[in-house]
Amino acid sequence: MLLELRANTNYLDKQLLIERLENMGFRVVESDANILAVIGGVNSLVATELFSELPNVAKVLPLTSNFKLASRQTKPSDTIIKMGEVSIGGDELFIIAGPCSIESREQLEACAKIAKDNGAQALRGGAYKPRSSPYDFQGMGVDGLKLLAEVGAKYGLITVSEVMDGSQIAAAAEYVDILQIGARNMQNYTLLTELGKIKNPILLKRGFAATYHELLMSAEYIMLAGNPNVILCERGIRTIETFTRNTLDLNAIPALQQLTHLPIVADPSHGTGVRSLVLPMARASVAAGAHGILVEMHPDPDKSISDAKQTIDFATFSDLVTQVRRIKSVLI
Amino acid sequence: MLLELRANTNYLDKQLLIERLENMGFRVVESDANILAVIGGVNSLVATELFSELPNVAKVLPLTSNFKLASRQTKPSDTIIKMGEVSIGGDELFIIAGPCSIESREQLEACAKIAKDNGAQALRGGAYKPRSSPYDFQGMGVDGLKLLAEVGAKYGLITVSEVMDGSQIAAAAEYVDILQIGARNMQNYTLLTELGKIKNPILLKRGFAATYHELLMSAEYIMLAGNPNVILCERGIRTIETFTRNTLDLNAIPALQQLTHLPIVADPSHGTGVRSLVLPMARASVAAGAHGILVEMHPDPDKSISDAKQTIDFATFSDLVTQVRRIKSVLI
Amino acid sequence: MLLELRANTNYLDKQLLIERLENMGFRVVESDANILAVIGGVNSLVATELFSELPNVAKVLPLTSNFKLASRQTKPSDTIIKMGEVSIGGDELFIIAGPCSIESREQLEACAKIAKDNGAQALRGGAYKPRSSPYDFQGMGVDGLKLLAEVGAKYGLITVSEVMDGSQIAAAAEYVDILQIGARNMQNYTLLTELGKIKNPILLKRGFAATYHELLMSAEYIMLAGNPNVILCERGIRTIETFTRNTLDLNAIPALQQLTHLPIVADPSHGTGVRSLVLPMARASVAAGAHGILVEMHPDPDKSISDAKQTIDFATFSDLVTQVRRIKSVLI
Amino acid sequence: MLLELRANTNYLDKQLLIERLENMGFRVVESDANILAVIGGVNSLVATELFSELPNVAKVLPLTSNFKLASRQTKPSDTIIKMGEVSIGGDELFIIAGPCSIESREQLEACAKIAKDNGAQALRGGAYKPRSSPYDFQGMGVDGLKLLAEVGAKYGLITVSEVMDGSQIAAAAEYVDILQIGARNMQNYTLLTELGKIKNPILLKRGFAATYHELLMSAEYIMLAGNPNVILCERGIRTIETFTRNTLDLNAIPALQQLTHLPIVADPSHGTGVRSLVLPMARASVAAGAHGILVEMHPDPDKSISDAKQTIDFATFSDLVTQVRRIKSVLI
Repeated sequence: MLLELRANTNYLDKQLLIERLENMGFRVVESDANILAVIGGVNSLVATELFSELPNVAKVLPLTSNFKLASRQTKPSDTIIKMGEVSIGGDELFIIAGPCSIESREQLEACAKIAKDNGAQALRGGAYKPRSSPYDFQGMGVDGLKLLAEVGAKYGLITVSEVMDGSQIAAAAEYVDILQIGARNMQNYTLLTELGKIKNPILLKRGFAATYHELLMSAEYIMLAGNPNVILCERGIRTIETFTRNTLDLNAIPALQQLTHLPIVADPSHGTGVRSLVLPMARASVAAGAHGILVEMHPDPDKSISDAKQTIDFATFSDLVTQVRRIKSVLI
Repeated sequence: MLLELRANTNYLDKQLLIERLENMGFRVVESDANILAVIGGVNSLVATELFSELPNVAKVLPLTSNFKLASRQTKPSDTIIKMGEVSIGGDELFIIAGPCSIESREQLEACAKIAKDNGAQALRGGAYKPRSSPYDFQGMGVDGLKLLAEVGAKYGLITVSEVMDGSQIAAAAEYVDILQIGARNMQNYTLLTELGKIKNPILLKRGFAATYHELLMSAEYIMLAGNPNVILCERGIRTIETFTRNTLDLNAIPALQQLTHLPIVADPSHGTGVRSLVLPMARASVAAGAHGILVEMHPDPDKSISDAKQTIDFATFSDLVTQVRRIKSVLI
Repeated sequence: MLLELRANTNYLDKQLLIERLENMGFRVVESDANILAVIGGVNSLVATELFSELPNVAKVLPLTSNFKLASRQTKPSDTIIKMGEVSIGGDELFIIAGPCSIESREQLEACAKIAKDNGAQALRGGAYKPRSSPYDFQGMGVDGLKLLAEVGAKYGLITVSEVMDGSQIAAAAEYVDILQIGARNMQNYTLLTELGKIKNPILLKRGFAATYHELLMSAEYIMLAGNPNVILCERGIRTIETFTRNTLDLNAIPALQQLTHLPIVADPSHGTGVRSLVLPMARASVAAGAHGILVEMHPDPDKSISDAKQTIDFATFSDLVTQVRRIKSVLI
Repeated sequence: MLLELRANTNYLDKQLLIERLENMGFRVVESDANILAVIGGVNSLVATELFSELPNVAKVLPLTSNFKLASRQTKPSDTIIKMGEVSIGGDELFIIAGPCSIESREQLEACAKIAKDNGAQALRGGAYKPRSSPYDFQGMGVDGLKLLAEVGAKYGLITVSEVMDGSQIAAAAEYVDILQIGARNMQNYTLLTELGKIKNPILLKRGFAATYHELLMSAEYIMLAGNPNVILCERGIRTIETFTRNTLDLNAIPALQQLTHLPIVADPSHGTGVRSLVLPMARASVAAGAHGILVEMHPDPDKSISDAKQTIDFATFSDLVTQVRRIKSVLI
């Protein structure tokens, strides 16, 4: 249920109303200016009339989507996440780049330097790696996170790294700015709920067979648990095509922007799985309206421990940034 | 097998070589400058040595892909199809627009005027409609084709219309410039072979569960039967997503450009099935590198007999053309 | 619209009613006992009341599905197609076996003998082959059909072969008992309509990305054009799994039986694409309720010109028949 | 690497060999009689010759699949998990039944009674529910587990319940016999590794877009961490079909049986998502060779808190058991 408040409702009256609703057993979230989202428990059947009689309530609107806090209906204005000088979700193009796995200080610094030189705002690097095979490299763990923190600080870059389990959250939240949830964990609800308890923005990747609706429901888990700073990421889905590893579904970008106020970035590295397709699909992502892109690069892509086939070199990255900025500059 | 000729081979010597190969039972296609593609029948096992001993043959290259005439390996340079002033497959952005179904002269003229005013080069309109239900409108048939020819001529637009069966080819080839093959007929091999016998360019749509490889094999059917003027069209595939009617697979654009020399256009109308997504996905298509786009528009989209949900109005079309041209202008 | 007639309506009154409805511009099909299906053109908006006032009409039932003639609602009782001694769609298990492609009289006779010896009722063999590549063997054509007719007659087997185009129907209808439509042509509506004009039963294979609803709409095309003898065939769909060529969707068997009265067979050869899976999946097909199965076998599977990987040998076929009959015998 | 020991190797010599291999830094698993699986760390490059020179080693076999402990190659004989009188993976059909969610003692007891009366060996019931929406019922938690333990003990049934996170394992391992991992957590590698540390058998459900290979790699995670008792479960994948919730992929049953020695059960409830399809697809599962089935039932299916659409009533369950046992009885 959404409550639209009277235009002149002052701060105190608003707080009183919130308190009263909470005493009635509801969870209340202040979404857009003068709109309160009221969320009940299971089976809470309260007549709309009851709400309309409360003081300062101008209008009562039913929530038609299953995702409530993530819904554009609840909050018509775009969510813009501020991190220092950087804004995610607004007009600025947010570029995240770095290696698939953190392998060494040298590798990570090389990536950070190129990222910074080309104007990227964030450095990514995997410390906990979700690998299909238990025999594959599983990541450097917390040592990787510390390295990422050091290198990020040195180059003035926001850091992004994946967590796979609740036990990794505390360390990650300490060393890393943005925590990433991978496709395989998009519906790991225990993990999502844990992420709702921290303040770091969460980069939530779409599962490789998840619908837009399910992605938004997963964002809702995080938001309902208390963390409103969710960045959605389209990273390709599995389809009948076998030439590419995944099919980057760019329809998701404008479709999600109609459904939600959350920022959305695209990952053309996983979305294609093919090195030579990363640059054109980064361009397409920005043209589709993505708020940012996430790309995997490496000083020597063929030697990348993981995801070598989709990792681009530094020259290609530099070219990519130039090209996506040109696209961004002509969007109306 | 590809034969690369010596640099100084003259016209006459080339013709003698072709004749000799044909007498040996091969089909010979002149692909790029100084390259001959030699195609055998089933089980033709001729030693590479035999070819290298022929006069004027500098190098013998095996064909590694199953599609031969359509392959970028056979013909490294882009195929550019010239139709009067218009070039398809080169630097010019080729825009095809019009109603899903031809309904009346008024409707078609209205579309043609808007198309022309906005600089589109081609007018599309369905006269034979492949409908899932036999109870749905099946199209105006040959009367529709004639109307399209008249309106196209009046406004100086190239015309595009779909054929569904060999029996429709003769009339369509007479009245229409480019013949379209729909997704459901992409593997109708009898039809493809028939289309190889005419001169009109063929717009070949990807089947909704066809791989890139299969699309190229279908192009090969047309080319092998004698018609080299094939334009490929990405129009979305079926996936697990249900919000959209199809998932426009833009990975296909750069991937196909690596595999083939043929022009490629994108259809964001069918590729999304959602009106509000057509414009952003048209932008993304061009950014991905498409040689052109195909969009469905209607004077009054909600009254469109077919595909109303994905049909845009004239104002949106005008906006779309402006935006895709801006994207095109910044591509390097 | 379905009209349920009064219990005691005699033949003459029924014919008068049909005539009257036809004069009103409707197409009338006698479906189950005392039920008439009345099908209008596009936009026929006739009030239900009008029908209920006609003589001998006991009840007027709206048609809720888009497929009307194929619908279980229109005709609650199972359609049983009688071909000589054989019944398709009833309690008898209908077994179709034979090579993917007809290669020679010896090969075909060998298959026919084994089929007959094991109690199969029908012999299949491809004469027109839909091949992804134009360079692959395209079948023996009409010579293959004649051979199939001869061998079928000699061994007392019903014959089944695929047609890919309207131009092949006349010859096929003459030489072959059941005409098969392949997955690639399931939505070739011109072909489906042509098949409605002959009397031979049609084995309609599900497209590899077609829904149950679309399969039934395609059956409707044939039935509406005049041929009620349609046998549906589940042959696997494309999914994310790559170990198998297709995913045999056995859910389709009981689901379709709820939606339609038409017979349904399963093809575990294409449905798996893997030789060692054919036998267990034939068992599963029968347990799911299939009216029959279609399997590819060959005297020497590894030498099969087409589909070798999914073709079983004679010993396996014999074992398969024994096993599926055991399953069939315990179904209640 | 697999080491086949000499036929007459005695217990002590075998232990000495294992110790020696472990001292060399390898992990050693005794798979089938007289076969040792030797698993190295990342990048362990040890020459085959080195192993062949060890005492009592008759033959050294390379491991060709990525899953090693789960591979049929490593252990040719079927794994049979013994739980009291019950054997899972052998000739006995293992039937697991119960409600989707544990709702009350009455509901659970009613299910247990019917399960027992019909000869099912196990009672399932969800205490932790992975729900797409955070607003849906999330399960009774540990109280549900305790209830399940009590009811299971009272009726002499093995108990099965899902865990979603490492934090739930300890309680579940105490109260429940078999721990289930749901489709959404199939690639939650942290959780899988935790499950390797307990002794309870693990019922591992296939992810709804996971390949057979990925399912086996996930089983490998559990086995490598120390728990060899993994039961695989096919529960349907997402496809283009929309009539059913999922497409039960029965090809998986015989395909997995070729690839692995682990027991495999099928879940026709989730695999169809449609109540009326559960019974025929249970039959088909058994005919395909499944070692068992998992079905959701409820005293009053329409009142089931979760998954009501796919939940069968007791009469249908009783009928289902009768029918699947008849199928099982005629399998050779």
